[in-house]
Amino acid sequence: MILRIDRIATEMPPPSSPDPAGAAVVQELLGGKFGEMSTFMNYTFQSFNFRARQEARPFFDLVSNIAAEEFGHIELVATAINTMLTGTGEKGDLPDPATLLNPQHIIAGGAAALVQDSNGKPWNGDFVTSTGDLVEDLTHNFFLETGARNNKLKVYEMVDHPAARALTGYLLVRGGVHQLAYARAIENLTGADLMKLFPSPRIPTDKIPECRPHLERGEHLKIYRFSPGDYLEIAAVFNGVHPETGEQLEVVDDAPEGFPAFDLPAQEGVFAPDYAPEEIAEIARRLREAAGLSDEPTGVVANDTSGVMSKVKDAVS
Amino acid sequence: MILRIDRIATEMPPPSSPDPAGAAVVQELLGGKFGEMSTFMNYTFQSFNFRARQEARPFFDLVSNIAAEEFGHIELVATAINTMLTGTGEKGDLPDPATLLNPQHIIAGGAAALVQDSNGKPWNGDFVTSTGDLVEDLTHNFFLETGARNNKLKVYEMVDHPAARALTGYLLVRGGVHQLAYARAIENLTGADLMKLFPSPRIPTDKIPECRPHLERGEHLKIYRFSPGDYLEIAAVFNGVHPETGEQLEVVDDAPEGFPAFDLPAQEGVFAPDYAPEEIAEIARRLREAAGLSDEPTGVVANDTSGVMSKVKDAVS
Amino acid sequence: MILRIDRIATEMPPPSSPDPAGAAVVQELLGGKFGEMSTFMNYTFQSFNFRARQEARPFFDLVSNIAAEEFGHIELVATAINTMLTGTGEKGDLPDPATLLNPQHIIAGGAAALVQDSNGKPWNGDFVTSTGDLVEDLTHNFFLETGARNNKLKVYEMVDHPAARALTGYLLVRGGVHQLAYARAIENLTGADLMKLFPSPRIPTDKIPECRPHLERGEHLKIYRFSPGDYLEIAAVFNGVHPETGEQLEVVDDAPEGFPAFDLPAQEGVFAPDYAPEEIAEIARRLREAAGLSDEPTGVVANDTSGVMSKVKDAVS
Amino acid sequence: MILRIDRIATEMPPPSSPDPAGAAVVQELLGGKFGEMSTFMNYTFQSFNFRARQEARPFFDLVSNIAAEEFGHIELVATAINTMLTGTGEKGDLPDPATLLNPQHIIAGGAAALVQDSNGKPWNGDFVTSTGDLVEDLTHNFFLETGARNNKLKVYEMVDHPAARALTGYLLVRGGVHQLAYARAIENLTGADLMKLFPSPRIPTDKIPECRPHLERGEHLKIYRFSPGDYLEIAAVFNGVHPETGEQLEVVDDAPEGFPAFDLPAQEGVFAPDYAPEEIAEIARRLREAAGLSDEPTGVVANDTSGVMSKVKDAVS
Amino acid sequence: MILRIDRIATEMPPPSSPDPAGAAVVQELLGGKFGEMSTFMNYTFQSFNFRARQEARPFFDLVSNIAAEEFGHIELVATAINTMLTGTGEKGDLPDPATLLNPQHIIAGGAAALVQDSNGKPWNGDFVTSTGDLVEDLTHNFFLETGARNNKLKVYEMVDHPAARALTGYLLVRGGVHQLAYARAIENLTGADLMKLFPSPRIPTDKIPECRPHLERGEHLKIYRFSPGDYLEIAAVFNGVHPETGEQLEVVDDAPEGFPAFDLPAQEGVFAPDYAPEEIAEIARRLREAAGLSDEPTGVVANDTSGVMSKVKDAVS
Amino acid sequence: MILRIDRIATEMPPPSSPDPAGAAVVQELLGGKFGEMSTFMNYTFQSFNFRARQEARPFFDLVSNIAAEEFGHIELVATAINTMLTGTGEKGDLPDPATLLNPQHIIAGGAAALVQDSNGKPWNGDFVTSTGDLVEDLTHNFFLETGARNNKLKVYEMVDHPAARALTGYLLVRGGVHQLAYARAIENLTGADLMKLFPSPRIPTDKIPECRPHLERGEHLKIYRFSPGDYLEIAAVFNGVHPETGEQLEVVDDAPEGFPAFDLPAQEGVFAPDYAPEEIAEIARRLREAAGLSDEPTGVVANDTSGVMSKVKDAVS
Repeated sequence: MILRIDRIATEMPPPSSPDPAGAAVVQELLGGKFGEMSTFMNYTFQSFNFRARQEARPFFDLVSNIAAEEFGHIELVATAINTMLTGTGEKGDLPDPATLLNPQHIIAGGAAALVQDSNGKPWNGDFVTSTGDLVEDLTHNFFLETGARNNKLKVYEMVDHPAARALTGYLLVRGGVHQLAYARAIENLTGADLMKLFPSPRIPTDKIPECRPHLERGEHLKIYRFSPGDYLEIAAVFNGVHPETGEQLEVVDDAPEGFPAFDLPAQEGVFAPDYAPEEIAEIARRLREAAGLSDEPTGVVANDTSGVMSKVKDAVS
Repeated sequence: MILRIDRIATEMPPPSSPDPAGAAVVQELLGGKFGEMSTFMNYTFQSFNFRARQEARPFFDLVSNIAAEEFGHIELVATAINTMLTGTGEKGDLPDPATLLNPQHIIAGGAAALVQDSNGKPWNGDFVTSTGDLVEDLTHNFFLETGARNNKLKVYEMVDHPAARALTGYLLVRGGVHQLAYARAIENLTGADLMKLFPSPRIPTDKIPECRPHLERGEHLKIYRFSPGDYLEIAAVFNGVHPETGEQLEVVDDAPEGFPAFDLPAQEGVFAPDYAPEEIAEIARRLREAAGLSDEPTGVVANDTSGVMSKVKDAVS
Repeated sequence: MILRIDRIATEMPPPSSPDPAGAAVVQELLGGKFGEMSTFMNYTFQSFNFRARQEARPFFDLVSNIAAEEFGHIELVATAINTMLTGTGEKGDLPDPATLLNPQHIIAGGAAALVQDSNGKPWNGDFVTSTGDLVEDLTHNFFLETGARNNKLKVYEMVDHPAARALTGYLLVRGGVHQLAYARAIENLTGADLMKLFPSPRIPTDKIPECRPHLERGEHLKIYRFSPGDYLEIAAVFNGVHPETGEQLEVVDDAPEGFPAFDLPAQEGVFAPDYAPEEIAEIARRLREAAGLSDEPTGVVANDTSGVMSKVKDAVS
Repeated sequence: MILRIDRIATEMPPPSSPDPAGAAVVQELLGGKFGEMSTFMNYTFQSFNFRARQEARPFFDLVSNIAAEEFGHIELVATAINTMLTGTGEKGDLPDPATLLNPQHIIAGGAAALVQDSNGKPWNGDFVTSTGDLVEDLTHNFFLETGARNNKLKVYEMVDHPAARALTGYLLVRGGVHQLAYARAIENLTGADLMKLFPSPRIPTDKIPECRPHLERGEHLKIYRFSPGDYLEIAAVFNGVHPETGEQLEVVDDAPEGFPAFDLPAQEGVFAPDYAPEEIAEIARRLREAAGLSDEPTGVVANDTSGVMSKVKDAVS
Repeated sequence: MILRIDRIATEMPPPSSPDPAGAAVVQELLGGKFGEMSTFMNYTFQSFNFRARQEARPFFDLVSNIAAEEFGHIELVATAINTMLTGTGEKGDLPDPATLLNPQHIIAGGAAALVQDSNGKPWNGDFVTSTGDLVEDLTHNFFLETGARNNKLKVYEMVDHPAARALTGYLLVRGGVHQLAYARAIENLTGADLMKLFPSPRIPTDKIPECRPHLERGEHLKIYRFSPGDYLEIAAVFNGVHPETGEQLEVVDDAPEGFPAFDLPAQEGVFAPDYAPEEIAEIARRLREAAGLSDEPTGVVANDTSGVMSKVKDAVS
Repeated sequence: MILRIDRIATEMPPPSSPDPAGAAVVQELLGGKFGEMSTFMNYTFQSFNFRARQEARPFFDLVSNIAAEEFGHIELVATAINTMLTGTGEKGDLPDPATLLNPQHIIAGGAAALVQDSNGKPWNGDFVTSTGDLVEDLTHNFFLETGARNNKLKVYEMVDHPAARALTGYLLVRGGVHQLAYARAIENLTGADLMKLFPSPRIPTDKIPECRPHLERGEHLKIYRFSPGDYLEIAAVFNGVHPETGEQLEVVDDAPEGFPAFDLPAQEGVFAPDYAPEEIAEIARRLREAAGLSDEPTGVVANDTSGVMSKVKDAVS
């Protein structure tokens, strides 16, 4: 079971100029073989299917917990794509087909992310490897993160939209932790030494400017515990030092706070959320009132200008 | 972002006689067009892609929150399948191919759930509809839950393994709430009246014995808030009375506690988690020790016999 | 069984400037999840699979008959695409790859329509929902037509080629009738009231200039009976008034006459129908002669200039 | 455009003992690479995409007209499957999963045909070849019919359910005509001689007892014109003698009359058409009455016992 | 480019009792994600796509050469499946559908292997990973061989048909060499130490009786050079000792001789190679004669009883 | 089994200006339904599955041998694509997404060929037809080569990059031989006369300038024997004269020598083979030395400038 938090994993920029071709490329990080749907679903199903989990608890806790962080990563890629597509669904101004790589962004998605790769093919369950063999699944996961890092580096280079850069800068750092965590788990389980495989691909993360703020906060060293009270044994396998910097790895006992997402504007030309969204706003206001709820929306968003956020904090405290 | 809790949504029975053919049929509820991967991913991506969410906050909160509950449902279906497959991966005693419907349960899965439907085809991203048009997405979701209820009812009838029955009994009740929630959301948004479509399919839930304990606890009336502090506006759209019983619908301000899962036994014949799992147990013990963690596994499982559970509760409190 | 008529459902413009990128987008209306292959095949298989059809005859007749009209819609989308691709297969002048969204239009299709969506993925049988549960199938069909209307509206906006506009203008009106027919069928079967869901998406059809001529002829109010003598009970479920205009709905006892299609010119560069089509013409002439048939082609096409049409009418009368 | 007739192409037996494994095998003839969905869709899209059709009219007429007959073939395969599945959806008596090859027949289909092959994989648009090159498309079609004949012969041998035998007996004869028609078209177009390829596979059709009644009626020699007034030039290419018997080939100027299908009984256990179908019957009766239609269902079915059929014939004459 | 040799990689038993369910399971080793189509195609495309191959020649030679051996492995799996299916295509005696896992073995394949996995889904190009990044591709290959070994071990346990056992016994040994070769290549390239990951899964190969004859011949230590004159630098990366036995690894400068396959008998019931294969034999004899070739077939097969083999050896020497 | 030769089938030009859109189109010849993966895999599996091969030896030999040549064709298409993509993976200079048709060339492939068609969809096993029925499989193969020829002609016209032209010029000639070989096999087996179907599509090969050098060397007339000592009976079925020129067909008793491929340069921007490939070169040099191998790379490549080639020839002679 999960609890959901209405925050995203890192700060993202507001929408700027739309970039539908770039957004099509970023889809690889969502629905590609090495995308975040794959990391999320691989670790999630491995945790569901984990047998004798008490006996192998440190490994179960590691896989289960990384799975939880990966939800935040599919959310973040979707957020980046949606940010990049903002402006492609304006009323009377849909994009010229010849400028698009993925027309379904507009037609199927409503100027929004799809469960597809960069060629517009749907993610599918064959991308999940969950054999139950612990050594094999960890080997797979290490390889999967290697492939994911490769794809993030290339998308970083190909797409310079601010949302894509904020995304890849963050994912490179956090995915790097997962790559390392699986390598350390294999080492701790078998005695094999994989540290010389880092970095893989062989370009250091700190060459990427958008990675540096995260590195400076030590985000390349930490596993957060994404649970109110479970997954207590991660430190048994995530330990030692970082293979590139020699810094100490660390398990953080709380989830990060996260950041409010921008409330992306309506795209009336694709009916998202409606051809006349102001009517929905009015209906929502009336429903809220009828239910005895707050006059104003309670959600916290990055582009809030009304002090709602502090009010909400009061309300929920 | 999410936090994960090491509990499952309802009490499940321990493994009994294996039922691989039944498990193959239950896969429809996991990876079929109307399975829980579809409900989870449809609502999850609709929430990621939701534009003007502040203006339409009650609807955003409803969809986002149901998405969170659905994670617990994919977990539960996987748990049922894994329970039914326990015994199919014993050393020296793998099943005769002629008795199987889905050989990949053994070969690919390690006697475990797959991201597939009942014909062994992978779930894929084309099963997600996220148009951004709020009326359309809600209409879709109502239909999706109708199809899901149809499939649960049939799987209930076809598969009488205790794990399958515990699963379908629970899912029918909770899925019924989601079907109703989307119908009410449509009504509140448009004024259309969908209550006469219940029950759909037209067999009342209380005809199913395994549903009754859940109905008696009022589980057919409640939306739980699966969040520490967000999604506060659900009550604006989930309100009114149940169309079949006239009872008042209700938003519960906390997530349910959940139940510990059984620690399903190793299946050495398929190397899950290993050909010699006792070695992993010994390694885990040493790693735990080296990390200064508890001597005993800290995880809470249904088949715990050692008092560990209370010790853990102490530890985390 | 069917009889086929060598006419298309509405008047289409002759080829003008080719628009391969636009044609790629229009493919969504042919082979997309909500395209006409889906509507055609969903209703067709629902009619094949309809049990107790005598008892539920008005519903069987409605579904079977709409299926028949949908054949004309896949034909019409294909015609639009073929019209838009005319000019992309000229000898010595195939399109520059960089200008294409769907290269298979040229390589696989011969400058012609494919059984694919706008991302070039094949339509597949998973897009058919035929559960046999009448309420559920009708609910599905209403939703399917809602999704189809969404896609038509967006393609209308994105693609301004005259053939695409003629297509979407017509399909919006006729698909709207089907959306309404399924809503009325649900209402008549269950008592639920879906009329407030119209229009969905919430943009009225009469805002689209290309729809207006069809609206003026009342095409938004009529179900035609596409059968020489069957499907007599449609009026039992297709009745009442139009939810947006209040006008009376109507069952028309004959199929529409249809319109001759343009005989699209050969595209020798892609061998359609040949590298040297004049040789085929000569062979056809000789074969016709040998068979004792008319000297001239008997088919009726929009770009006929020879009075053949009237001759044919004589011949078949 | 098409007109639809509520008849099936040949007489089919009533339901007898259910045969779900056999029905799963028969699916190959519906949704397999060489199944009737493939023949129907290949010829249909070839006819939509046919360029310079006036110049090549005899060939256009042949392909278009055979496409029309193929609709009746997908209908017939579906009818056979539905007949074989009758009895698998009884209330409280769904099949044991271990006896099934295709569980989705029950779960997805409501004891009904699916758009799948015999391995439960969906038919897809890649099975359509429509290159526009007339010689190539005809070559393809000849090969496709060869593959289809192969599959029908094997399904005939593997499945002895009366509905499967009635189906394959009929399809072998009619498919044989199409195989021959395309061979003759190639010959007439190019001068190549393909007659020595018959029969292919090299087992004569008259060895199959269920084929003989159709052979005796000369069904192996005739192309019917499935149109009220079009496709007049078929005889220019479908001519000469049958390669195995030397009998004269013939174009018949009317579609065959067809046969009423059995009204297959409700399968309440899978909600087809409902859990309580008698309620639908009552609703239908009232709707019919309200609409001023006949008291009794007007449809003609093979298991009619009430004289309705003649009444209807009066009504429509 | 390749030269082909009409031999198979190891001695296979003649057909005995047919085992279609077992054959369906063996398909996983052919067309599954970790099957031989995947190993063959991964290494083949990596070799095609290898950039700067001169600079990295030892690695290029290793990958290219293993690719060549893998062709022999897809051939061997197909041979095993065909052996197991011999007897399922007898005239008048096709299998009862209820006994089958994969009906397409009979209907599509002619009692023969398919390019599918054990659930009857086609192998597809997404199973190929060829990133060009040498460290990553080698990491992938090591993981792929680990997954392949897992699958072979399970199929060994599930399927006891002599052909399946001969197959898995051989593939386990040779696949183990490839797993090791990629691990050594990674070590030689990066300095990482992967030897402690062996065996993976953690069951030693010498526990399998059918592996022992191959182990005794040292087949677990050798890379053969499958080329008349290329791939000379393998020894630069395939060196050191076997991680489990300490024996020296070795590059053998010639391809193995191979073994003649059994000429599997005709299956007339599925027209393989014909309904009346003796006619083909007669035609072949006449064609051979007309071409001035040998009176008798020149091919070498395991079930040859005529001394042809030695004659051929004379002929080609 | 196969032996591999480090040569390509025809001379290819060195990289020039990159053409990623053209490369995306050329993918159709690799992974499309009628691409070289299809020809290679169809004939390969038909040869694996060939029953009674001794009796039908000339046909077995023909199919097996053509399969071997097709390996060289997938290699050649991959080589062309890789040549065209050289320059798209430069450090700091990845292509603008808007200029791409297939972003996975860069992200998944490392500026390299993929197992996909021109729409970026993976090749799959459903594209293989291997029924075992000899007449049918030969008919299929003739049709497959017809479709392949169509696609090559169109790609020739659409893509003018020198590598694409060298590729299509060569493939048209060699594929034409295979088309003819299968037609002759059918004729020899059945007596049918297919020669009038040539050329199909009906544009003579000698109209293509890039084909002429190959025609002048008689490459349109020869089947090479791609085997050191097998497949001796091809001449029994590949005989007679060329249908367009009347020249004598011929079986050549040796494989062609082939041509060295260009060693395509590293693309550091996509880590192919590394971000810093010079390090790999240095490692390779040391490994070679440690293994007692030649100082210099032994491979033979077209852009060799060091006299290595002759040295190698010495070494292997």
